[in-house]
Amino acid sequence: MRILVVGGTGTIGQAVVSKLSKEHEVITAGRTSGDVQVDLTSTESIESLFKKVGHVDAIVNASGAATFKLVEDMTPEDNLVAVQSKLLGQINLALIGQKYLHNYGSITLTTGVMKDDPIPGGASAALANGGVAAFVKSAAIDFTHGIRINCVSPNVLVESFEKYKESFRGFTPVPVERVATAYVKSVEGKQTGQEYQIY
Amino acid sequence: MRILVVGGTGTIGQAVVSKLSKEHEVITAGRTSGDVQVDLTSTESIESLFKKVGHVDAIVNASGAATFKLVEDMTPEDNLVAVQSKLLGQINLALIGQKYLHNYGSITLTTGVMKDDPIPGGASAALANGGVAAFVKSAAIDFTHGIRINCVSPNVLVESFEKYKESFRGFTPVPVERVATAYVKSVEGKQTGQEYQIY
Repeated sequence: MRILVVGGTGTIGQAVVSKLSKEHEVITAGRTSGDVQVDLTSTESIESLFKKVGHVDAIVNASGAATFKLVEDMTPEDNLVAVQSKLLGQINLALIGQKYLHNYGSITLTTGVMKDDPIPGGASAALANGGVAAFVKSAAIDFTHGIRINCVSPNVLVESFEKYKESFRGFTPVPVERVATAYVKSVEGKQTGQEYQIY
Repeated sequence: MRILVVGGTGTIGQAVVSKLSKEHEVITAGRTSGDVQVDLTSTESIESLFKKVGHVDAIVNASGAATFKLVEDMTPEDNLVAVQSKLLGQINLALIGQKYLHNYGSITLTTGVMKDDPIPGGASAALANGGVAAFVKSAAIDFTHGIRINCVSPNVLVESFEKYKESFRGFTPVPVERVATAYVKSVEGKQTGQEYQIY
């Protein structure tokens, strides 16, 4: 398969690229790194990405930003970071990218544990995660030509737990290896409309 | 209690106002109707609403628009209707409204069944519903001073099933009376971070 991985240089993205590139042609995209550049907060940039890359068999996104702030201190502007990046960035990648998928192609997006198991200051990220997960479940029934869509919801990672442990007290982190395997299931399997919760 | 109900003239809003006004002072807000006017897609309009209304004990929203369109035909622009109205309209009502809540006050938002039980063309509404539900669950752990937040997720209503039945084939509609009761539970009860699924 020919696979586009957006956010291929993050902890999860690298592990996904490492697994997929054993058997497939992987093109990586990122804001400043990767084979091609893209800013997911801009629909023009996403259009331009696909004009450069052309048709693929799978689109994977492992990127997305959010502001972490307690709700009592959060302004509508703070919340827009997650909405523009982690929510609409991913949804627009799917809406625009679907036109560049071969039949039986797939889209795999990324959500996250805090939508199901809240952390302090995580409401904006949770909003984006919940929106993406519900979109995926619903969009799956609309697609024709065998197009599939799933998302992966990772817990906090073993590899970055030291950095984030104050926010994730009492959580049991998961190895990135297990998370990356779920992306492979989405790309190489046949399921659609799923959220793979790696908790 | 002094309660602000946004969208008090829709089918659900009317039923909620009817129930709550038996024991409470209810102020209704709508785009063109109600005691005060508000456009939830504008943060300035929401700020202006609360400056007119002042402090309340409960904020309820029963409004929100979305574009219904198959994902294969959906553009990023189509999707923005739900994002600006049903998603950010409600979230911004909560973010701005929290400053106008008395201690032990509550916020009650509205999601919908299609996030859990998809219908054709419902992905954009599902996205908004999923985002709001995840925000509610997460925001609840951030609030102090006894502030609570919940949402109600109604199935298609008996009262409007004739109009929507083509989209909801095989669904069992619920009476608006049952849905309205869930808003009362959110306002008068003590629970927080809940999504009351009236399916």
